[in-house]
Amino acid sequence: MAVTTLDISMSLDSFIAGPNQTVEEPLGEGGLQLHEWIFGLASWRERHGQSGGVTNADSEVLQESVEATGAVVMGRRMFSGGEGPWENDPVAGGWWGEEPPFGVPVFVLTHHARQPVELQGETAFTFVSEGVEAALEQARAAAGDRNVAVAGGANVVQQFLAARLLDEIQIHLVPVLLGGGVRLFGPGDEQPALELTRVIDSPTVTHLRYRVAN
Amino acid sequence: MAVTTLDISMSLDSFIAGPNQTVEEPLGEGGLQLHEWIFGLASWRERHGQSGGVTNADSEVLQESVEATGAVVMGRRMFSGGEGPWENDPVAGGWWGEEPPFGVPVFVLTHHARQPVELQGETAFTFVSEGVEAALEQARAAAGDRNVAVAGGANVVQQFLAARLLDEIQIHLVPVLLGGGVRLFGPGDEQPALELTRVIDSPTVTHLRYRVAN
Repeated sequence: MAVTTLDISMSLDSFIAGPNQTVEEPLGEGGLQLHEWIFGLASWRERHGQSGGVTNADSEVLQESVEATGAVVMGRRMFSGGEGPWENDPVAGGWWGEEPPFGVPVFVLTHHARQPVELQGETAFTFVSEGVEAALEQARAAAGDRNVAVAGGANVVQQFLAARLLDEIQIHLVPVLLGGGVRLFGPGDEQPALELTRVIDSPTVTHLRYRVAN
Repeated sequence: MAVTTLDISMSLDSFIAGPNQTVEEPLGEGGLQLHEWIFGLASWRERHGQSGGVTNADSEVLQESVEATGAVVMGRRMFSGGEGPWENDPVAGGWWGEEPPFGVPVFVLTHHARQPVELQGETAFTFVSEGVEAALEQARAAAGDRNVAVAGGANVVQQFLAARLLDEIQIHLVPVLLGGGVRLFGPGDEQPALELTRVIDSPTVTHLRYRVAN
């Protein structure tokens, strides 16, 4: 059954980006370390037009996520990378470039209405300014019998958690301490209960899957 | 080889205690959830004079830690449980009672010098007011060829990390979001690098072991 899932890399001290994010360093200081487990994978390199790389437990987890995902929801800042609404938008596709790696429809939560953008590789960006439930409804329709993946940032994740719209969370827990930056989870005593459903580990990352009790 | 290790339960949002800690609720609101994986274990129940309980992967991890530990270092607040230095100290042993569960020498970091206290079950509390390095030196001597375990709280852990005195970290990652409370790791860009060395999981907790590169 299709679910709404969060699939995200996080440091052991619960950050999804380091401190001092800039356009040049959108993941903040040290933030790229959270994604290093992906860059060496054959499956990731193939999707980004590169050859080589390894195939291991991590690549199976990544491939599984890619195949299960029919649509993506993300925040405006994750789409464009900058402070202003579209400041890093040289080719209409935000800082993801002409051929973004998603390969499925992407729904961008924003306060700024905008016409959809279709790019190469089957990625189409649709801009939703009516809130998370509207974005999820559109994403579900686009995903068909596949999952909707919430990609971030933290603000969007926290809105989905608070609205009790996430069915599943998969954390790729990276053995690094960032010491500051953007925390994935927000404050408040209204957190949903979690049930640990699967653990897959490799030397570089621990993939933890939880069912969310909403 | 004997190492200095941190062995601690943490929520997925990186808290080791919930918000609003009190003498009645020393782990804060919701904080007991972090230790529920222990309370049902046969090995834990036996050490606390109770019968029954289960034996599973979690009990092996706990038993392994207990057997490897030759001395414990903790903060003053973890010893006495209250704001004032010894306010919950009816029987000289702080709120741990007449027969604390450690069974090895415990070194309490404090600004308040105090004579050692020997209790039943081979637990002796020694009070060290000369800082973490002095506490570690005394704990190492007491531990012999076994490990020194840093038990908390967060402030003590952060002092050990900052002084580059921890060799190993074992996090018992509990599938719960506390939404507030006491964070295990502190801020700052001088965090040590970690290497993931072992993962053991059960339905209720994920045991993650890291080597610290100091």
